[in-house]
Amino acid sequence: MSLTLARRMGALRSSAIRDLLTVTARPDVLSLAGGLPDPELVPHERIRQEVDRVLGSPDALQYTETAGWFGLREVVAARETGQVAPDEVVITHGSQQALSLLAQVLLDPGASVVVEEPAYPGALQVFRAAESRVLTVPLDVDGMRTDRLEALLDSGERPVLVHTVSNFHNPRGATMTAARRAHLAGLAERFGFWVLEDDPYGELYYDGPPPEPVATHSDRVIRLSSASKILAPALRVGWLRGPREVCAAVELVKQGADLCGSSLIHQVATGLLTDGPWLDAHLTAIRAQYGARATALHSALVGEFGDAVEVTAAAGGMFGWVEFRDGTDTDALLRAAVERRVAFVPGSAFAVDGGHRHGARVCFTTNTAATLEVAVERLAEAHRTLVVTT
Amino acid sequence: MSLTLARRMGALRSSAIRDLLTVTARPDVLSLAGGLPDPELVPHERIRQEVDRVLGSPDALQYTETAGWFGLREVVAARETGQVAPDEVVITHGSQQALSLLAQVLLDPGASVVVEEPAYPGALQVFRAAESRVLTVPLDVDGMRTDRLEALLDSGERPVLVHTVSNFHNPRGATMTAARRAHLAGLAERFGFWVLEDDPYGELYYDGPPPEPVATHSDRVIRLSSASKILAPALRVGWLRGPREVCAAVELVKQGADLCGSSLIHQVATGLLTDGPWLDAHLTAIRAQYGARATALHSALVGEFGDAVEVTAAAGGMFGWVEFRDGTDTDALLRAAVERRVAFVPGSAFAVDGGHRHGARVCFTTNTAATLEVAVERLAEAHRTLVVTT
Repeated sequence: MSLTLARRMGALRSSAIRDLLTVTARPDVLSLAGGLPDPELVPHERIRQEVDRVLGSPDALQYTETAGWFGLREVVAARETGQVAPDEVVITHGSQQALSLLAQVLLDPGASVVVEEPAYPGALQVFRAAESRVLTVPLDVDGMRTDRLEALLDSGERPVLVHTVSNFHNPRGATMTAARRAHLAGLAERFGFWVLEDDPYGELYYDGPPPEPVATHSDRVIRLSSASKILAPALRVGWLRGPREVCAAVELVKQGADLCGSSLIHQVATGLLTDGPWLDAHLTAIRAQYGARATALHSALVGEFGDAVEVTAAAGGMFGWVEFRDGTDTDALLRAAVERRVAFVPGSAFAVDGGHRHGARVCFTTNTAATLEVAVERLAEAHRTLVVTT
Repeated sequence: MSLTLARRMGALRSSAIRDLLTVTARPDVLSLAGGLPDPELVPHERIRQEVDRVLGSPDALQYTETAGWFGLREVVAARETGQVAPDEVVITHGSQQALSLLAQVLLDPGASVVVEEPAYPGALQVFRAAESRVLTVPLDVDGMRTDRLEALLDSGERPVLVHTVSNFHNPRGATMTAARRAHLAGLAERFGFWVLEDDPYGELYYDGPPPEPVATHSDRVIRLSSASKILAPALRVGWLRGPREVCAAVELVKQGADLCGSSLIHQVATGLLTDGPWLDAHLTAIRAQYGARATALHSALVGEFGDAVEVTAAAGGMFGWVEFRDGTDTDALLRAAVERRVAFVPGSAFAVDGGHRHGARVCFTTNTAATLEVAVERLAEAHRTLVVTT
């Protein structure tokens, strides 16, 4: 094992969420822990049709360009806000690869990066592996506290990049307001850092679309997104949209990382994303289903826990966030909960330097409203036991 | 752009082969430059059947385990020589990703690595990106000159790893003899380095199977292979087989790199690789076709160039290697050749520190025997012009 890897091993420890998934895979456990689409709402038949269509072409199964099948870059560019050209887009193997390649392109060891706190663990893992100096800025219900970011910058910190999940934050559920987006973009221009606007959930809105992307305010923003949440995770189709020179550098690094993506899958994704009427109907359908579940989970939590918790209303995405006001330690709650056959992800899994011991991420996408109610009942039982025993 | 990337930029320059592919994509150019399977010999229909079967399962399009779909790890383990357990296998996004992840796991900046000369550019790119100190050992028709490796080790060099394409070398066409495999494995044990036995072509033999893998001689060997050459590149299914602790470290690094592969594609590959009768018939068929093309190309080269060249007989894989004995500079020959609508890859593309200016890699897989003959006629015309004008 290399010394470098040994040094990073703490940073690279297997994510708490993924370890937990092994427990929650038990069929008797109702899981609010995942971050998965409901398999029932993944368009198996439509994907089968596209595969059939694409396999009729002789180059369906050949190598493709490192930056991705050109038609897919075109449709992704067209779906982005503003005038975006295909060479301002790189298709990646899920948006996690976009994060990882961008870290290789933008970060030297020891460089400072800013993440939101609580943080998306996949980003944290990449920045720690890049041996970055990780700084944090808190989130509230209006998204990143850009005033706190400004204070950090005013104190002399000079991050190379600031990572934000601008829409329906994982894990916090919050969406950044339009004013904060403009503020963040202004800071990026003034202080010369990159904003990585990580946006896998933006299309999964249940009340109405989120504000315009941070990227509409500045060229210092690189947007990341994915087909995993709206179409299917197994497509492993993610992308980044950014300045040409960044895309060219990412393409070069991707060549060494995995040569290229799958021409078959890229063409399938192209077919789905270019079929506007089908896609609109599909998005409308999954928004309705997930939106109803988000509401059901929220009502159940408020009904069972009342004033003991503050619940972020999930207006989109996959997650609600529960903050216990009664001092409940959510690591302890998880242990009690698993005994009662329900699981969630405790806030500590998203903490950069400890903390969030009273928070919990709850996913509403993979269970029906009725099941979510049972899950919350079990969670409340676990919570009562905990209060009694402490 | 990070300083690290700027420093690596020379190393990460876009591979000469891939740049060339843009020229050779012109429909009027007969290309011996690629390294692709013939789309006509890729089993489109069988893959369609497998996709249909897999899409019937509700988890066909969900996230999967970072180390790969368990069934695929099982069948890969079973197909490896010796007793291999599924947790000694990691499925990667093409074998290029296996190389890239292994470099992250095994190499500190400045670490010494040994590559064969002429070298596989994809490996060179990874090791240069890892800021390795790249040492070379020459190849001859019997594969790596392990005596030269031993001399290097005796001189005090202590590489962390030695990379070899043991079967049907890219670009050199050579296969390492059994005696040299045992010698290499012995050196690995004595000096404590890892052997990366990069073997995408081992199943594509046209006379008879190659000798037993280097891995049969030592636990210090990590084998890499791929379904790209025998099934389809667009599956992007590669793998590595190595000690458990190496696999565990690779899995951890892969989590940050791209989270996981495609459960759909992994299940499709599992279906194809476990259907023994179909796979045997498929391999027999493509061996017959590619073998006939290898022979046709060899005969045409010998017929047109006679004593001016030495041609490595390709007993497998995708490539022949032509060494010009008449002083022909193959960079110059390529320019003349492209004017005559034929392309190949000049030896310089595989040189670590310059050299191989009289060598040429010629691929025989994507053209029929008749087309290969025309391509060699055009190449001979280009060669004559060059001799006349110099």
